Amino acid sequence: MSTKILILGGGGMVGQKLAHRLLDHGLNGTRDLQITLHDIGFPEDGAPVPDRRIGNLAEIGQVEALAAERPDVIFHLASIVSGEAETNFDLGWNVNMHPTWRFLEALRAEHEASESNYRPRLVFTSSIAVFGGPYPDKIGDEFLSAPQTSYGAQKAICETLISDFSRKGFIDGLSIRLPTICVRPGKANLAASSFFSGIIREPLNGQEAILPVPDTVRHWHASPRSAATFLTHAAGLREEQLQNRRALNLPGVSCTVAEQIEALREIAGNDVVKLIKPEPNEAIMKIVDGWPRDFAPERAKALGFEAETDFKEIIRVYMEDDLPRA
Amino acid sequence: MSTKILILGGGGMVGQKLAHRLLDHGLNGTRDLQITLHDIGFPEDGAPVPDRRIGNLAEIGQVEALAAERPDVIFHLASIVSGEAETNFDLGWNVNMHPTWRFLEALRAEHEASESNYRPRLVFTSSIAVFGGPYPDKIGDEFLSAPQTSYGAQKAICETLISDFSRKGFIDGLSIRLPTICVRPGKANLAASSFFSGIIREPLNGQEAILPVPDTVRHWHASPRSAATFLTHAAGLREEQLQNRRALNLPGVSCTVAEQIEALREIAGNDVVKLIKPEPNEAIMKIVDGWPRDFAPERAKALGFEAETDFKEIIRVYMEDDLPRA
Repeated sequence: MSTKILILGGGGMVGQKLAHRLLDHGLNGTRDLQITLHDIGFPEDGAPVPDRRIGNLAEIGQVEALAAERPDVIFHLASIVSGEAETNFDLGWNVNMHPTWRFLEALRAEHEASESNYRPRLVFTSSIAVFGGPYPDKIGDEFLSAPQTSYGAQKAICETLISDFSRKGFIDGLSIRLPTICVRPGKANLAASSFFSGIIREPLNGQEAILPVPDTVRHWHASPRSAATFLTHAAGLREEQLQNRRALNLPGVSCTVAEQIEALREIAGNDVVKLIKPEPNEAIMKIVDGWPRDFAPERAKALGFEAETDFKEIIRVYMEDDLPRA
Repeated sequence: MSTKILILGGGGMVGQKLAHRLLDHGLNGTRDLQITLHDIGFPEDGAPVPDRRIGNLAEIGQVEALAAERPDVIFHLASIVSGEAETNFDLGWNVNMHPTWRFLEALRAEHEASESNYRPRLVFTSSIAVFGGPYPDKIGDEFLSAPQTSYGAQKAICETLISDFSRKGFIDGLSIRLPTICVRPGKANLAASSFFSGIIREPLNGQEAILPVPDTVRHWHASPRSAATFLTHAAGLREEQLQNRRALNLPGVSCTVAEQIEALREIAGNDVVKLIKPEPNEAIMKIVDGWPRDFAPERAKALGFEAETDFKEIIRVYMEDDLPRA
């Protein structure tokens, strides 16, 4: 019997990377996959998954209908981005928190109605935005969650819900706290972190890029390719490996914006770097100031998660995977 | 103008201690208080507060009506206890989480409708049940929340909501993670921690008490008197003292059940101690096994919170405050 996979947020950048990876490589040794993508829209040249559902998870009935199909593995990537959740408080909670609650309740109802102990693996993309300063030099696996954005608060709450529904045996879920994904292909989005990709992507495509923060800003990154492998790796972990701690800090690359720019210079030259234009933006600086800078993700490494080892590698992944299509 | 105070859960043990304290001592120097208690019921010989409202926060409209009265200071103590939230999953979330969300939304609506920047101080009684093992020897102020009960998950989520609504400026809230309150007067309740009080209270009243766990169990306690002073102290903290970390671990006494019993023996003698009957209970042991044992609550101490210094003092507080009325 084929494995039923549901990707919420399957039209987004990471959802598409994941869909491509599943089509190309299968899921942890299984090639017989029945994939469903759900999102508010899909890119025209997106991953060739026939079963694409257009809908809004915030509408009553959507998550309930998806749960009723009893997917075996669910990747929950659907989210309003950080900048948007900060400016539109209602929208943030209505998209990033309440549908997750209703979805978990719907999955629990399926579990309780099932004769075969239905209990899907749910992989939730959380974020390092669950953290808030002051920080230690490196954030360890036991550091508190104290979000300083609504987006981070919504992610932290979903993590807690998923842990409790899993502990009770209704689902088998875990949350992975993605580093800031960089270099994102395509256009800038409303995430406050969008510029981290923009200052690499735009110059490599011969366009100017705005740098809204000082180049001393240090942050934590992984590539879109790593995001997809994080997700498939998470889907294959055995429950007993999680030991009642179902939210994981993932590996990544810690570097300053200056180091990002230097890596770009080494790879693409000075003329490309000259396309980066500093233009300080107080609103973005205020959000980014509260973000983590470095991690010691020992648990995730021990569980086999892997990311790039330096920022040049992150740029090269973009040049291999996305630049040819840009 | 008098200070309007609302106590949610005002009919419960801690709510009553708080009401008595406010009547006797005022609130941080203010004696002109207009106190409202809300709960599903009140003790017959309770604190003489005329404005007692009987109602269920889980019913739509209740929290909205209370918010519309625009209290200046709100103590939110209303909760289903841990044992009950564990056996009745729906009830736990419907009482311990959803009404808090709706209450915060209602307070935000009052804030936004107000011409005087209405923004109440909200003190939420959270719990050390937000933590989950494995633990360090002493839990520090930056240790992660990883609850292993639904009650703990609900408390952790309310903390996160209160922090975000406060950060956005809609309310001015904080959460205090109470130690297990001991010695509780009156009857045993459905909390899994109920026996910690029972093994002191019942023998002092000449009755047998069941000890459902091994006497090697170490746990973290403070008296009902301390609970009331924690609450009034929290109400008086200035917002800038909280530094974006609006959930506090409070001081308490760390001791084993054997040390509790020894303290009782020193104070009340061997015949009293003989009334404690070991009767292992797997369900309670399983819950208590996951609980914290000791803390280093540096932030709360620096902010002026104080508890008892040893368990004998906790017993003496019970004998002074509650034994005469038992």
